[in-house]
Amino acid sequence: MRHTISVLVENKFGVLARIAGLFSGRGYNIESLSVAPTLDPTVSRMTIVTAGDDRVLEQISKQLNKLIDVIKVWDVTQQEFVDRELVLIRVDVTKETRNEVFRLAQLFEAKVADAGERSLTLEASGNEARIEDFIRLLKPLGIREFVRSGRVAILKSDQK
Amino acid sequence: MRHTISVLVENKFGVLARIAGLFSGRGYNIESLSVAPTLDPTVSRMTIVTAGDDRVLEQISKQLNKLIDVIKVWDVTQQEFVDRELVLIRVDVTKETRNEVFRLAQLFEAKVADAGERSLTLEASGNEARIEDFIRLLKPLGIREFVRSGRVAILKSDQK
Repeated sequence: MRHTISVLVENKFGVLARIAGLFSGRGYNIESLSVAPTLDPTVSRMTIVTAGDDRVLEQISKQLNKLIDVIKVWDVTQQEFVDRELVLIRVDVTKETRNEVFRLAQLFEAKVADAGERSLTLEASGNEARIEDFIRLLKPLGIREFVRSGRVAILKSDQK
Repeated sequence: MRHTISVLVENKFGVLARIAGLFSGRGYNIESLSVAPTLDPTVSRMTIVTAGDDRVLEQISKQLNKLIDVIKVWDVTQQEFVDRELVLIRVDVTKETRNEVFRLAQLFEAKVADAGERSLTLEASGNEARIEDFIRLLKPLGIREFVRSGRVAILKSDQK
């Protein structure tokens, strides 16, 4: 099963390497990971998306909890949550594809992050399925490059 | 100086741990990192934000390039780039703060990701300064929790 794990960590050297090492040491691949600061500058928050055996993942969570710089670990997949990701996507723009690119951008409520003569960089956000739909529809028009943030997730309101 | 590094890697066990280890081994803190799939499912793309001595960072880049699963490394900070990040932010909503929360959400073009009885989860994207402004303005209204994706960055159009 696919899991989305949130981890609060002390923002110290080597924490990320140790956490990533715990996953890879057990043959667990990390599908996406993001880590960024919180309100407290000494604390960072990670969101990790991974797929695999539930029991092994439970072991990993326990080991994460034992790491000295880990403050809290929770599996948001166990509760109701919302998840979003961001994509920056640079797509070819020709006389022929221009209208289609603009229409898709509008339909997906994308913003223009940058415009060049022959390409456009679009910024879109949404859940994973939405981002993947956007990429799939733009693909035949000529994607030059894109970068995804990976999933961020938060428990639904009023659950805790 | 602050740097934003893009890294294309083979999506294999342990790559993330090795890369994170290279930074921490040199006493380099990673401020934000995101990694997610690309069009080729065997390849992932990372964006790493770090601050420190330029020469040490150049050494790290060279070492990254030598790692067997690293396909390409580039420092986007060396060229013109656009960067964005995403935040999910859960904020208290009371009779007194309701209007102010809604007004701020509108001003920052945030979307409602989830609504509870006493709180609202907003989704906003923008560059780092914009995200930090949004957080700072919401803070006095009562932030319960937030999660940031960390920075994703892409070179400006028509540069390559």
